[in-house]
Amino acid sequence: MSRAKAVKSGKPGKASRKLVYFFGGGRADGNESMKELLGGKGANLAEMAGHPKLRLPVPPGFTIGTDVCMHYHEKGHSYPRGLEAEVRRSLSEVGRLMGRRFGDPRNPLLLSVRSGARRSMPGMMETVLNVGLSRDTLEGLIRQSGDDRFVYDAYRRFIMMYADVVMEKAAGVEPRGGVGIRKVLDSLLEEVKRRRGYDSDTQLTVAEWKALVEEFRATVVKVLGRSFPDDPWEQLWGAIGAVFSSWNGKRAIEYRRIEKIPDDWGTAVNVQAMVFGNMGPDCATGVGFTRNPGTGEARFYGEYLMNAQGEDVVAGIRTPAPVNEYSKNAQSRHLPTLERSMPGIYKELWEYQRRLERHYRDMQDIEFTIEKGRLYMLQCRVGKRNGMAAVRMAVDMHREGLIPARTAVQRVSPNQLVELLLPMLDPLAEHAAKPMAKGLPAGPGGARGRVVFRSEDAVAWASKGEKVIMVREETSPEDVDGMHKSQAILTSKGGMTSHAALVARGWGKCCIVGCGDIEIDEERRTFRTKDGQVVREGDWLSLNGTKGLVYEGQLPLVDIDIRSNRPYRAFMRLVDGFRTMGVRANADTPQDAAVALAFGAEGVGLFRTEHMFYGEHSEKPLFLLRRMILSETEAERREAIGKLSRHVKRDIKSTLSVMAGRPVTIRLLDPPLHEFVPHDPVRLKELSEVLGVRPGVLRRRVLALHENNPMLGHRGVRLGISYPEITEMQVRAILEATAELRAEGRKAFPEIMVPVTSTSSELVHQRAIVERVHREVCASKGLRRIPYQFGTMIEVPRAALQAGEMAQQADFFSFGTNDLTQMCFGFSRDDIGGFLPVYLEQRILLQDPFQSIDQEGVGELVRLGTERGRKSNKALKVGICGEHGGDPESVRFFHGLGMDYVSCSPYRVPIARLAAAQACLTR
Amino acid sequence: MSRAKAVKSGKPGKASRKLVYFFGGGRADGNESMKELLGGKGANLAEMAGHPKLRLPVPPGFTIGTDVCMHYHEKGHSYPRGLEAEVRRSLSEVGRLMGRRFGDPRNPLLLSVRSGARRSMPGMMETVLNVGLSRDTLEGLIRQSGDDRFVYDAYRRFIMMYADVVMEKAAGVEPRGGVGIRKVLDSLLEEVKRRRGYDSDTQLTVAEWKALVEEFRATVVKVLGRSFPDDPWEQLWGAIGAVFSSWNGKRAIEYRRIEKIPDDWGTAVNVQAMVFGNMGPDCATGVGFTRNPGTGEARFYGEYLMNAQGEDVVAGIRTPAPVNEYSKNAQSRHLPTLERSMPGIYKELWEYQRRLERHYRDMQDIEFTIEKGRLYMLQCRVGKRNGMAAVRMAVDMHREGLIPARTAVQRVSPNQLVELLLPMLDPLAEHAAKPMAKGLPAGPGGARGRVVFRSEDAVAWASKGEKVIMVREETSPEDVDGMHKSQAILTSKGGMTSHAALVARGWGKCCIVGCGDIEIDEERRTFRTKDGQVVREGDWLSLNGTKGLVYEGQLPLVDIDIRSNRPYRAFMRLVDGFRTMGVRANADTPQDAAVALAFGAEGVGLFRTEHMFYGEHSEKPLFLLRRMILSETEAERREAIGKLSRHVKRDIKSTLSVMAGRPVTIRLLDPPLHEFVPHDPVRLKELSEVLGVRPGVLRRRVLALHENNPMLGHRGVRLGISYPEITEMQVRAILEATAELRAEGRKAFPEIMVPVTSTSSELVHQRAIVERVHREVCASKGLRRIPYQFGTMIEVPRAALQAGEMAQQADFFSFGTNDLTQMCFGFSRDDIGGFLPVYLEQRILLQDPFQSIDQEGVGELVRLGTERGRKSNKALKVGICGEHGGDPESVRFFHGLGMDYVSCSPYRVPIARLAAAQACLTR
Repeated sequence: MSRAKAVKSGKPGKASRKLVYFFGGGRADGNESMKELLGGKGANLAEMAGHPKLRLPVPPGFTIGTDVCMHYHEKGHSYPRGLEAEVRRSLSEVGRLMGRRFGDPRNPLLLSVRSGARRSMPGMMETVLNVGLSRDTLEGLIRQSGDDRFVYDAYRRFIMMYADVVMEKAAGVEPRGGVGIRKVLDSLLEEVKRRRGYDSDTQLTVAEWKALVEEFRATVVKVLGRSFPDDPWEQLWGAIGAVFSSWNGKRAIEYRRIEKIPDDWGTAVNVQAMVFGNMGPDCATGVGFTRNPGTGEARFYGEYLMNAQGEDVVAGIRTPAPVNEYSKNAQSRHLPTLERSMPGIYKELWEYQRRLERHYRDMQDIEFTIEKGRLYMLQCRVGKRNGMAAVRMAVDMHREGLIPARTAVQRVSPNQLVELLLPMLDPLAEHAAKPMAKGLPAGPGGARGRVVFRSEDAVAWASKGEKVIMVREETSPEDVDGMHKSQAILTSKGGMTSHAALVARGWGKCCIVGCGDIEIDEERRTFRTKDGQVVREGDWLSLNGTKGLVYEGQLPLVDIDIRSNRPYRAFMRLVDGFRTMGVRANADTPQDAAVALAFGAEGVGLFRTEHMFYGEHSEKPLFLLRRMILSETEAERREAIGKLSRHVKRDIKSTLSVMAGRPVTIRLLDPPLHEFVPHDPVRLKELSEVLGVRPGVLRRRVLALHENNPMLGHRGVRLGISYPEITEMQVRAILEATAELRAEGRKAFPEIMVPVTSTSSELVHQRAIVERVHREVCASKGLRRIPYQFGTMIEVPRAALQAGEMAQQADFFSFGTNDLTQMCFGFSRDDIGGFLPVYLEQRILLQDPFQSIDQEGVGELVRLGTERGRKSNKALKVGICGEHGGDPESVRFFHGLGMDYVSCSPYRVPIARLAAAQACLTR
Repeated sequence: MSRAKAVKSGKPGKASRKLVYFFGGGRADGNESMKELLGGKGANLAEMAGHPKLRLPVPPGFTIGTDVCMHYHEKGHSYPRGLEAEVRRSLSEVGRLMGRRFGDPRNPLLLSVRSGARRSMPGMMETVLNVGLSRDTLEGLIRQSGDDRFVYDAYRRFIMMYADVVMEKAAGVEPRGGVGIRKVLDSLLEEVKRRRGYDSDTQLTVAEWKALVEEFRATVVKVLGRSFPDDPWEQLWGAIGAVFSSWNGKRAIEYRRIEKIPDDWGTAVNVQAMVFGNMGPDCATGVGFTRNPGTGEARFYGEYLMNAQGEDVVAGIRTPAPVNEYSKNAQSRHLPTLERSMPGIYKELWEYQRRLERHYRDMQDIEFTIEKGRLYMLQCRVGKRNGMAAVRMAVDMHREGLIPARTAVQRVSPNQLVELLLPMLDPLAEHAAKPMAKGLPAGPGGARGRVVFRSEDAVAWASKGEKVIMVREETSPEDVDGMHKSQAILTSKGGMTSHAALVARGWGKCCIVGCGDIEIDEERRTFRTKDGQVVREGDWLSLNGTKGLVYEGQLPLVDIDIRSNRPYRAFMRLVDGFRTMGVRANADTPQDAAVALAFGAEGVGLFRTEHMFYGEHSEKPLFLLRRMILSETEAERREAIGKLSRHVKRDIKSTLSVMAGRPVTIRLLDPPLHEFVPHDPVRLKELSEVLGVRPGVLRRRVLALHENNPMLGHRGVRLGISYPEITEMQVRAILEATAELRAEGRKAFPEIMVPVTSTSSELVHQRAIVERVHREVCASKGLRRIPYQFGTMIEVPRAALQAGEMAQQADFFSFGTNDLTQMCFGFSRDDIGGFLPVYLEQRILLQDPFQSIDQEGVGELVRLGTERGRKSNKALKVGICGEHGGDPESVRFFHGLGMDYVSCSPYRVPIARLAAAQACLTR
């Protein structure tokens, strides 16, 4: 049944449903709970005006409900019977409260007519201000304000707005000449200014305004074929209709489609008395926050402008004054505070803001206007705040007894937490600067440094104490050293999951990728922006990795070491009180592990054994690995493996030791072997000399390792089955490291994880090796048992489907959702740059599935895998490792699947903890 | 409850269960239906001996049931009470029938003791022959046979076999000196021969045999610590126990694990009177087939040897004689037939074989022995036959009323049909030749030709009328021309799904891949086998692609054009009478389509638009495609697309026309664009000149197209979304071709298929283009509607999971199980050679999942996709295209899922038709 039918047409014998909801004068027909009917704005105005604990001086008005909107659209733009009477009744009450009358030429009441849907749809629907202003009421308003220029300016604005919104758009009138009325009227004003040589509207004389509004009125008739209405009632119904019509405007429909807002919600219409902060020296307008939105401090903070309208505060032409001493800043220090200039009003305002915060139990962002010495509260809403402030407010309000712990935990968004964890460019400085290029925000936070173009240079400059930013087309494992030494990384190619992005996020390092705005000339060591600006090696850059913005020069940084920040620590205690799912970190080194611990990780969810072959200290192990891969004889290979084992053991031991008995999931060697050998002739020749292998043999061996699709090639467990000695070596290193630590009286608990499995028989094969080596190590160390668990990555679709079989061979699963996403979509992460931008732009995909897990597709595999695994092995531990472990939305999804833990980069551990806690609190 | 418990121990008051089943003398306790208890061999012997319609002269004997085997193993190698008495009773009946007595020194009965499980386990368990032969009975046997050398030879064989099987293996005795008794005894015999300078056993004198058997007996005591038994009963129970024990031997257990035979089935033991075909000139032995196994002709066919044992026929030392005129061949033409030499026996034999075929209603392979003028039927079983014979027999037997149509259809295996469809090397010639190398059998059939090493040479030589075989390390799309012109393809690398294998199978061309036995020197135009043999360009080779064998020189070929073969046509009519699932073909050209039609295809299930850019006539379209890909300006691109469209239309039109209204599924462009551009500098330079694009620009463009994992890259629908003009051009070509054909009064029905989709929004996007172009083409041709369907490949795991959404945008699904297998397993088809051999060898995978669909993993995606798709779109048509469509096991699986059709290469259409029909007949 259509909702419109529920709106009774006032037939006799039937109870007539209320259509119009009054607010003002300390009472209201509606309240905050009636958003469905009154829209967000209407419900909020009613609450402010009418709630017994608030009763704020809101300019009086009334709301026409959303049901009328649906009636309007379903019944050919007509209104339910009785509406007009209710509107008249309410309007006379508004007039009474304001001491004015709608349409009264001597003392006119002016109205604003605004939309207001259940959920905010900013800028998508229409607004008409100053309704009731006409040739008849002009004079009355001049008398009220004592400022005829102000009144004529208001009137010409009203004509422009009304003609455009009501007479042209809502009426669907095709303007003669094809140019919209607004544009035509604008050009008339410009023409006057041009003729007079004026720079600004304010230079027009009253006479000129008078002449112009007459020209406006004449032009409206010419262009739209109708004369501009002088009847205030006609104006009002026109404005109301225009707002209702705009619910079905193109912009609004498109917005609803994207935001998934049902078409049958409809919008309410709010009709409210206009008040003016610019009617004289006893007028003002301002905004305020019930607590400091920058720091979270629990003090009233605000700014105001004397004799001004709200827009003027926002426009930033005049410097606003502080409402009190606390609100002073460098720019406004010398200006008079409201507390001083209007102490009574300030006291009243202070009381209202306190009342509002108490009532809403959250920091409020308020707007107020003082019209001729009378304070009006125009709006209040939950105030925006930065991360630090959000944490502090949550903790403080909880301590003050204003909100329970669960609300405190929900008050901070995971992304706000990111702000806390990283240094950032000073927002004020950034506000003043102009970015020279924009790329993808791959690693959040801010950084500054001098430009270098090669990894070696980064290392060299950094060793001399220089702060550097590494700029490259793309990065590769060979650049890792330089990346590590850089303050930030900037690449012109690659996507959010390119090598640079992954590495930087893992380190919590600022990084911008895919910055197509710059063109790098590596040879000349310069890059050029699309504006033609050239940046040379050694020049300073500043990067905002949270937004992907690149600035020239050195912008100041703000930084806090959050780990010792008291509000942060208090907040995370609250968080962990609700969290049920574990949070681990992906860490490849003892350093990473220590950072992870400090951020509250409860284990290492992914330790990649291959990391030791990349980067700084990799020379020796990489040499041995290459010897192993490329050796010609069995004996050489065995020797290389034996030596390699010692490195692997030392490496594993140090991380196990840092984690002190917390589980450490060690993934067996994963990458295809060709990743470890050089491919260019020069390096190959070098290697051939070092290894003592003939160049021809080496070349052939390297060539044989080449793969067309390495992602789907000879890697993971496939290596462990082709070369069981590699598995054996690693397992031996893990178990010996564990045994040795325990012999030293320290705790250690490794989880041995087999990657890229697709069938349970692979696990049977690898498990046999693990069990044999375990027996051998036990025998050699004289132990009965070394504690460990055996499990597998689930990162191949088949493994997820076959989870029931897999689980019988495993103590744990760890979903590798990066690779699972690649294979489930058939998207190569390295090559996605070719089409993903188009996919996102065309909304074929709503988000990058490597950023936030694709719940429908990849997520179904995770769900199936978890269910089937648990069904066949009740004791199965299930977690996920991979980028998604640090994405709040994904964490919520994994919580919903009942996972035991998520694992993410150390710097995202707090974010995952918060997301996991919040997941417990929502449904 | 253990099955052993069911064997009652003969306690008073309980009915004792029968343990021993006699057969012989025209009666039998068991019959063919009792395989569970008597094993296959025992049940068959009982049937032959005892069935009222057979009553064949089988050497008498008895079977000890499988339940005794389980008792034996569960009760510490003991026997149920009463067994011994039953054995004695049965054995005396055997003696009575044979006119001999077990253990009688003057007229001894000798026995064979053999295993026989429910299902055949060839060679996995033990057999002991000549049981009952001892120092005491030797003389009696000499009297019976009149040949003492024969008897001593039998005796020494018996000692060797018994000492090995019973005294050493079954008893678990560790031989002194560590060398097995059989080897020790063998070396004694060799020593005698060496001393005497004999080449063959037959040269030993009776005295030497006598001395040797004494030495054997002494050695048995020395090595095994027990003396060789002379007591025939001890021998018999020893042999029975050894056969039972061998059920739990290592080989047998391993075999059962692989073949999934339950451990608790157990084996029966068959004890049977020995008969000898080598006791004199009135003795013979032979084998026969109730119909000709090579041609299927319904005539008795067989061979025999006078005075010989069964092994001698098999060993091939003497040329066997034909049983009748019909069985004569080139080698045996001059030898006397059994029909002539023993007419009474032949008549009897002919009668028996006829009886057997009538009884079993299938061609029987029989073994017989004539001992002193008396015919014994030793064995009968369903005879092996080649493909042609199988088809003819099935059709004939159905016509003769011997079998119903459904049985006829089940009588031919799909692989037998393959034999019919391709020329093959003459089996006799092949039998005589020695292969020089072995590779993977990628394209079945036989071929011969002269070796070339390059595609250009293949084309050049072929144009001069030479038959060539192209030999390469691997093939690529650039070799397609040469491949097409070659009789066969031989590669040293690549697997069953390499480029060469796929292309060859598509054409039904003989192909051997991954032939690691040869090393190619392309520069010198030679290859070398691992035996060091060198083959040069121009040398002749013959290939057996069904078995992967490579022969030197020219072997004769046998070939039949099956399409006009009458038994084949009759058979396929029977087949189609049962088939419910459709069969289409993958065809890219009108030629392919015509072949497919001739083979009975009901449509084209996959037409790849990209084929026109490869091979012979591709120059012009490839040039235009390259221009499109690499053009610098929009105008150039549009121009290239416009011209290209004409080629595409012509191409599509000709195939639509051949198929005359049958559905043709046209897949939109699939491969990543870089597949179409050259990558080496020389060719790039050429291209740059031809296209008139600056070399630098071209190089950059080509480089930008490079992908790390092209399989998961910018291909399929991703191209169609990035470059909607490519989709548009193809769709326009398809619809215009259809409209034009219909205007000419011909039928045409295209199905437009979008590849590599992973989300339904891709289909929404492409569908909008298709519908718009449809409107445009209709308008331009003045039509109301052009018939077509719109659908998608399901080849990405996510598409299968999201099938419910996808189906709402599609008229049909076609599962692309090649790519689905790649992504479900994470196996790159191109790179699988690195690990698949090890996987198959180690039985990590039981079969190559690209050959036969992985029913558990990939199959589940297909099942889910089909179910979900059909659920959301009742009218959805579902099929599969890809290699699996021609694999019988996969076809059966797809039938089980209720698919509408499978599509395979034209040459596999009959195979798919048969497999689809058989799928209807089994469960």
